Amino acid sequence: MKNTATLLVSCPDQKGISAAIANFLLTYNANIVDSNQHQDDSENLFLMRVEWDLSDFTLNMDAFASAFQPIADKFSMRWRVALSSARPKMAIFVSKYDHCFVDLLHRYHSGELHCEIPLIISNHEDCRPLADFYGVPFHVIEVNKENKKAAEQKQRELLDGAGVDLIVLARYMQVLSHEFTAAYPKRIINIHHSFLPAFEGAKPYHRAFARGVKLIGATSHYVTEVLDDGPIIEQDVTRISHRDAVEDLVQHGRDLERIVLSRAVRWHLDNRVLVYANKTVIFS
Amino acid sequence: MKNTATLLVSCPDQKGISAAIANFLLTYNANIVDSNQHQDDSENLFLMRVEWDLSDFTLNMDAFASAFQPIADKFSMRWRVALSSARPKMAIFVSKYDHCFVDLLHRYHSGELHCEIPLIISNHEDCRPLADFYGVPFHVIEVNKENKKAAEQKQRELLDGAGVDLIVLARYMQVLSHEFTAAYPKRIINIHHSFLPAFEGAKPYHRAFARGVKLIGATSHYVTEVLDDGPIIEQDVTRISHRDAVEDLVQHGRDLERIVLSRAVRWHLDNRVLVYANKTVIFS
Amino acid sequence: MKNTATLLVSCPDQKGISAAIANFLLTYNANIVDSNQHQDDSENLFLMRVEWDLSDFTLNMDAFASAFQPIADKFSMRWRVALSSARPKMAIFVSKYDHCFVDLLHRYHSGELHCEIPLIISNHEDCRPLADFYGVPFHVIEVNKENKKAAEQKQRELLDGAGVDLIVLARYMQVLSHEFTAAYPKRIINIHHSFLPAFEGAKPYHRAFARGVKLIGATSHYVTEVLDDGPIIEQDVTRISHRDAVEDLVQHGRDLERIVLSRAVRWHLDNRVLVYANKTVIFS
Amino acid sequence: MKNTATLLVSCPDQKGISAAIANFLLTYNANIVDSNQHQDDSENLFLMRVEWDLSDFTLNMDAFASAFQPIADKFSMRWRVALSSARPKMAIFVSKYDHCFVDLLHRYHSGELHCEIPLIISNHEDCRPLADFYGVPFHVIEVNKENKKAAEQKQRELLDGAGVDLIVLARYMQVLSHEFTAAYPKRIINIHHSFLPAFEGAKPYHRAFARGVKLIGATSHYVTEVLDDGPIIEQDVTRISHRDAVEDLVQHGRDLERIVLSRAVRWHLDNRVLVYANKTVIFS
Repeated sequence: MKNTATLLVSCPDQKGISAAIANFLLTYNANIVDSNQHQDDSENLFLMRVEWDLSDFTLNMDAFASAFQPIADKFSMRWRVALSSARPKMAIFVSKYDHCFVDLLHRYHSGELHCEIPLIISNHEDCRPLADFYGVPFHVIEVNKENKKAAEQKQRELLDGAGVDLIVLARYMQVLSHEFTAAYPKRIINIHHSFLPAFEGAKPYHRAFARGVKLIGATSHYVTEVLDDGPIIEQDVTRISHRDAVEDLVQHGRDLERIVLSRAVRWHLDNRVLVYANKTVIFS
Repeated sequence: MKNTATLLVSCPDQKGISAAIANFLLTYNANIVDSNQHQDDSENLFLMRVEWDLSDFTLNMDAFASAFQPIADKFSMRWRVALSSARPKMAIFVSKYDHCFVDLLHRYHSGELHCEIPLIISNHEDCRPLADFYGVPFHVIEVNKENKKAAEQKQRELLDGAGVDLIVLARYMQVLSHEFTAAYPKRIINIHHSFLPAFEGAKPYHRAFARGVKLIGATSHYVTEVLDDGPIIEQDVTRISHRDAVEDLVQHGRDLERIVLSRAVRWHLDNRVLVYANKTVIFS
Repeated sequence: MKNTATLLVSCPDQKGISAAIANFLLTYNANIVDSNQHQDDSENLFLMRVEWDLSDFTLNMDAFASAFQPIADKFSMRWRVALSSARPKMAIFVSKYDHCFVDLLHRYHSGELHCEIPLIISNHEDCRPLADFYGVPFHVIEVNKENKKAAEQKQRELLDGAGVDLIVLARYMQVLSHEFTAAYPKRIINIHHSFLPAFEGAKPYHRAFARGVKLIGATSHYVTEVLDDGPIIEQDVTRISHRDAVEDLVQHGRDLERIVLSRAVRWHLDNRVLVYANKTVIFS
Repeated sequence: MKNTATLLVSCPDQKGISAAIANFLLTYNANIVDSNQHQDDSENLFLMRVEWDLSDFTLNMDAFASAFQPIADKFSMRWRVALSSARPKMAIFVSKYDHCFVDLLHRYHSGELHCEIPLIISNHEDCRPLADFYGVPFHVIEVNKENKKAAEQKQRELLDGAGVDLIVLARYMQVLSHEFTAAYPKRIINIHHSFLPAFEGAKPYHRAFARGVKLIGATSHYVTEVLDDGPIIEQDVTRISHRDAVEDLVQHGRDLERIVLSRAVRWHLDNRVLVYANKTVIFS
C-alpha cells in the first residue's frame, strides 16, 4: 500500500488552475501517481483529483493547508486533502436485513475498505452476533414515532462521540429526520433498492414486479433532506424474467445492493467522489 | 429454416392443460421442437408456447382451429397459432431520427426479421432515400395540431389497405390518439429512450443528465392509451459517466435504442411474446 | 415455500415424450407449476424439467420410481426426481481466500441455499472461526506432494461418512486427483477466476493483466478429469480499465467469483442443471 | 462542436512532467477542457491526454511541434497532437458480411465518426450498392493464394494514394501479410468475433458453442503480425443460453461486433487511445 496524499478541488473554471496545482506540487517534489480533471460546461466548474506519493514530498502535510490556501483563494476553490495513511471513521446503520451489513463487515475485515468502524447502530438486536464476531461495538437504539427525536439524539451522541466521518445506511429501515441529515451533509450513504428515479420510496420490488420491468436496479446515493433524491454515487441493474416472483426480485436485488453499496463506500473512502449540483463526479 | 407452427396459449390455471395440448399434438404426430410453460401465481394464469415441426404433422393447418377449438373451450383459452412460413406485415413509423429505422431495414434486408414491410409512414421526407434504397414504399403524412385526426385517418387507410399486422414506432415523434392506439391493441411497438418507469414522457436524456444517473436505459413496449405505460417487452441500460454531456447520452442511447427495439420486434415476430396483466412473458 | 417435486429427464428425441410425461403426471393429479423442455438438434436429445405441487398428488413419492420406470424404459431416459422438502448435503472445500466461503455460508444461514452443510474441509486453519460462528464442523486436512493420496483418502471418508451429495470448491487451491474427481461425477462445482476457456490454469488475473483485456471473468463449472474443462454452469464478466493493477483485478474478481459460484450452486441445488455433451442446460 | 487540440504523451515517468505540460499550455493561454494522466507502475510509464479549446490559444498550431519539442526532448516523450478540425482518412475493408460495414457507414453519414472515408476495399462485389448509396468509392480487389502479394500491392497503392490514416477491417475475411500489417502499425483496427484470448483464429462461434460457454464476446484490437494478438481496444459480451444454436450465436454476435468495433473506431478517431506494451490506455 502506497503512502499518498489526495487533493480534491472544485472551483469556477478558468485558465491556469492545472498549472498552479502542478507547480505547487512540483515545488515540494511531489511524485504524482494519478491525476484527473473534469470541466462541467453546464455549471462552468473545474473539478480535479490528484494523488501523489509522499515518499519524496518535502512539505510536511501538517503545513499543507497553510501552504496551499493562497492558491485556493486565488481560484475560489472548495478543496480537501486526504492521506492514505488516515483511516476515516465509518458507522454502519442496520435494521434486520443483514446482506449489506455482512458484506461491509467482511470487506472491512479483509482490508478492502480503508476505514475504521468504531460502531454499529441498529434498531434491532438481530445483527449483534455478527458485529460481535468481527469485534465491532453494536448499539441498539429502538426507534418509533414517539421517541424518534430522542432516538436520533442518542445516535448523534454516539456518532459524534466516536468522531464518525461517514455513516452508511446498510438497509436501515427508518427515515432520518431533516435535522439529522442536515447534520451530516454528503456524509451519509444510503442504498436504495431500485434504479432511481424509478420507484422512489417504499416497496420498490413490489412496484417493479407490478410494472413488469425486465431489469431491476439498486442505487447508492448521498442522503439529503429529500427522500431518495440525493446525489447518486453508483447504480447497477440485473436482468429478471417473468418467472421471477417478488421474492425472487428481492433475492436477486440483494446481490445487487451489496455490490452497489460497497462500490459507493469504497469510492467515498478512497476520495474518488466529488459532489456538485446534486450530482457526483467519480474519479475512477 | 424449419417449417414449424407455434401455439400460444393463456388461460386460467388448472390441472390437465399440458396433457391435453401434448395429447392433441401427438394425435397428429407433431414433432415438438420447443415447449415452455409458465404459471403466474398472482393472476392464476397458465401461459404456454409450444412449437412443432410440420414435416410429419398429419393435421392440415387450415383445419387446426376447428380441431383445437374444443380443447380451447374446455380450458377457456385465449390462443393463437402462427406458421413460420407466414410473413406478418410490419409497418414502420419514423420521423427524422433514423438510427432505429436504418437498423430495422438492414435486419429486414438481411433476413433477420421474419416479416414483410409493405410500407413506411413518416411525417418528414428525410428518410425517403433509404426506404428507396431498400425498395420499401415510403409515405409522408404531415401531422400537426390541426390535421391530426385527418392524418391518422390517412395512416389507418394505408395500414389497413396493406393488411398490416404490426406497427413499429422507430422514434416516431408524434403522440398517437386513443382512437388510433385502440385500433391496434398489442400491435404497436414503441421504443422509449429511458429505463421506464423512470423519465416517462418528453426529453428523458435531458432529465437523466439533470438527475445525475450513472446508467441510461431504453425500453420497448406495446403502446396503450396511457403514454409510456404499456406492457414492457424489453429493456436495457448502458453505463455513462460525469464526462458525458446530454449529447453524449443521446449518442450512447442510440445504440441502446436500436438493440432494444430490434429485440422486441424480433421476439414479437417470432411469436415469443404473450401479454397479460399489463406485462409480457417472453418465451426466449 | 412450496412442497414440490422436480423431474429431470434426458433421452434420445422422439415423438410422444412430452405427452407421456404429462399424462403420467395427470394420472396422479399433479399440479404442474413449471415446465420446460429443450431439444438439442446436434445431439438429437430431448431434455426436460418439470416441477409440480405435491399437495394434490395422489402417488406416494416413495413409489414414484417404480411407477415411472416403464415410461423411462420406453424412451431410454436418464432421469432423476427431487423433492423440495429434501435437503441435499453440501460440503465446502476452502483454502485461505475466504470471499466465496463467507458468501456461501451467509446465503446458507439466511436460507437462500436449499441444503445442509454437514462439513467444511480445508488445508488451512484460517477459515475456522467463521465456520465456528455459523456452527459448521470444520476439518483441516493438510495436503502436500507427499501425502496427497492419503489426504484425499481422509477427505473421502469424511464426505462419504456424511453422505455428501455436492462438493463446492470455494477457491480451494489444491488440484484434485483423477481418482477423486471420478468418485463424484457432476457433483463437484468449482469456481475458476477467468472467463474460460481464456486463461485456463494458474494465475489467470496476472495473465489477463499482461494481455490487456478490457473485461475479466469468472466461470463456475463441474469438475472433470481435465483441468478447467468441465461443463460450464455459469459465467460472468466485469469491466476493468488501464487504471487497474493486478491487485485491482483480484479485488474486482472477488465480487464476480462470489456471484458466479453462488448462482451455480443455487441452480444445482434447485435441480435446474442438466449435463450433456460436456455442456449444461440451465432451466431458469 | 468545439475547436480543440489534443496532445497525447507517453514517456518514462518522472517528476515535473505534468507541470511542464501545464505551464507550456498556460504560456499560450490554453483553456484545458479535459485532462487525464495515468502512471503504469509495471512499465514505469507516464501516459497523458490533454485537450484544450483553441479559441484563445495564442500559439499557431503550425508552430506547435517546434515550440513543444524541447519539452518532449527533456522528458524523452513520444507524442502527437491532433486537431478536432482535422478529418483523418479512414478506409474500410469488407468481404460479404455487411453488418459492421452498414453500421460504420451509417455512423459516418450521421456525423458520429470524425473522419473522411475516401475509399472502401473489398474482395467481393456484394457491398457495392450500399457504398454507392453513401457515395463512397468502392474498389474490388480479388484475393486468392496465388495473387495475394499483387493484391496487397494494389491495396497499398489505393490506400497510400488516398493518404489513408486508419484501416478498419469490418469482418474482412482475408488474413493480411506481415508486410502489409507492418506498413500500418497501430493503424489497422480489426474486429474479432470472440472474447480474446479465448477462441483465437477461425470459427470462434462454432468453438464457443462446442465448449458450452454462457456468454459470447467480441474484441476490437490493433492488428499486429501475430494473428489476433494485437493490443485490445475494446471488448464486450452478451449472454446466450442452451437454446441458442450456432446460427443464433452468429446473430447475437453481429450486434456485439457492431457495437464493439464502432466504439474502438470512435475512440481511435477521437484520439483517446494510447498503445504501450501490447496494451491500450483508453482515455474515456
